[in-house]
Amino acid sequence: MLTLYSFGPGANSLKPLLALYEKGLPFTRRQLNPANFEHHEDWFKKINPNAQVPALDHDGKIITESTVICEYLEDVFADGPRLRPADPYRRAQMRIWTKWVDEYFCWCVSTIGWERMVSRMARQYSEEEFEAYVRRIPLYEQQVKWRRARAGFPQEMLEEEMRKIAFSVRRLEARLAESPWLAGPDYTLADICNFAIANGMERGFPELVNAQDTPRLVEWIGRINERPAAKKMFAETPRDKLERPAQPAARSG
Amino acid sequence: MLTLYSFGPGANSLKPLLALYEKGLPFTRRQLNPANFEHHEDWFKKINPNAQVPALDHDGKIITESTVICEYLEDVFADGPRLRPADPYRRAQMRIWTKWVDEYFCWCVSTIGWERMVSRMARQYSEEEFEAYVRRIPLYEQQVKWRRARAGFPQEMLEEEMRKIAFSVRRLEARLAESPWLAGPDYTLADICNFAIANGMERGFPELVNAQDTPRLVEWIGRINERPAAKKMFAETPRDKLERPAQPAARSG
Repeated sequence: MLTLYSFGPGANSLKPLLALYEKGLPFTRRQLNPANFEHHEDWFKKINPNAQVPALDHDGKIITESTVICEYLEDVFADGPRLRPADPYRRAQMRIWTKWVDEYFCWCVSTIGWERMVSRMARQYSEEEFEAYVRRIPLYEQQVKWRRARAGFPQEMLEEEMRKIAFSVRRLEARLAESPWLAGPDYTLADICNFAIANGMERGFPELVNAQDTPRLVEWIGRINERPAAKKMFAETPRDKLERPAQPAARSG
Repeated sequence: MLTLYSFGPGANSLKPLLALYEKGLPFTRRQLNPANFEHHEDWFKKINPNAQVPALDHDGKIITESTVICEYLEDVFADGPRLRPADPYRRAQMRIWTKWVDEYFCWCVSTIGWERMVSRMARQYSEEEFEAYVRRIPLYEQQVKWRRARAGFPQEMLEEEMRKIAFSVRRLEARLAESPWLAGPDYTLADICNFAIANGMERGFPELVNAQDTPRLVEWIGRINERPAAKKMFAETPRDKLERPAQPAARSG
């Protein structure tokens, strides 16, 4: 039995969500609410001591880290639709792209998302209430990020992240000019993991992602949104829980 | 035919090097010299446009990124000694550890290594010579790092990296208290990738890594050094090219 603990279909939570839908695997979808710090509650820390979503429960075994969960699903459910190339060289190309999301692309988009949305949320609480919430967070770096969100991220940091986002967008556009999918001829986890961050950038970063400047990126985002699995994933998300992309809890696992 | 382009047996270069020795695969070892920026030369940029080692040439196909190369070797050479658990859950645990090296552990140790050793190297050149070298570096972040090395890293950054190193050391010690190897009962890429960074920390960070405070970490480092593959790898490194661990080019691929 599979249970996925996640936020809504955006950022790191989207990766295993979409992978599960693409593979047609039946699973229980347990959606946490970042707005009231649900992932920092004790019941969830018993599942993932790092208090981060997504986390997958497979017959009682817990797998964490969004990209690791995706590879795990490929390792275990090899019979259904495959999201990882069989060819080792192509598989390596796929991993270079998923690794890049985790080490670069997800972070810059996440900081801007936090500045725009988590900041507002964090300021709804009194200093005391907020600190009580932050103290429950086990990872020091996450505590720092929450405090920065409330105080406002340093301007220098925001500018540097915007530079990285512009670079990332150019990199994706260039790659999609030479290949229909990021890791080659087939749709793979490379596409899912990058889509998790890029989806919605036309609204969040219209000066960077638009039909004129990045036609291939826009087309690729549209192409993934048109896939039956993506449509089903979004349709099955409770309306009141539909989060905007590049949303608060962007960086979590 | 396999050719590995790398620096000496430390940091990211050590990962595929030791994996190749452990698997007993014949390969050509092509050792570049970071002290004269050899990896930024045009001939090598034809192999890896990012100008980073390690890079593996397998029958003309180039695979980059140290952790990706290690997984590639497991995918292709599945018949010999295995460095990746067959069980998907254990494999996921292994990937959480290799990912942690790439996203956290390697960076903090690398910054201190650069401050201690690359800085000196960078200052041997005149401003003009140095800038000419730096302009050849394709990755913007690497240019920034080289310039910081020459100017000296900000004190605040060095303190934050030392905090992360202390946290990393405690984390490894705690894990090795509950398991003989990082991903469970077997020696895997999790151990190789962490060893790549941790080896030599008794000398580089004696206040953090020592027989009294971190007995299990020290024992684990010793245990890997005693493996025939590690002994052979170090023995076959040209003496004049033996780099100290936590060495200049620590973070490269």
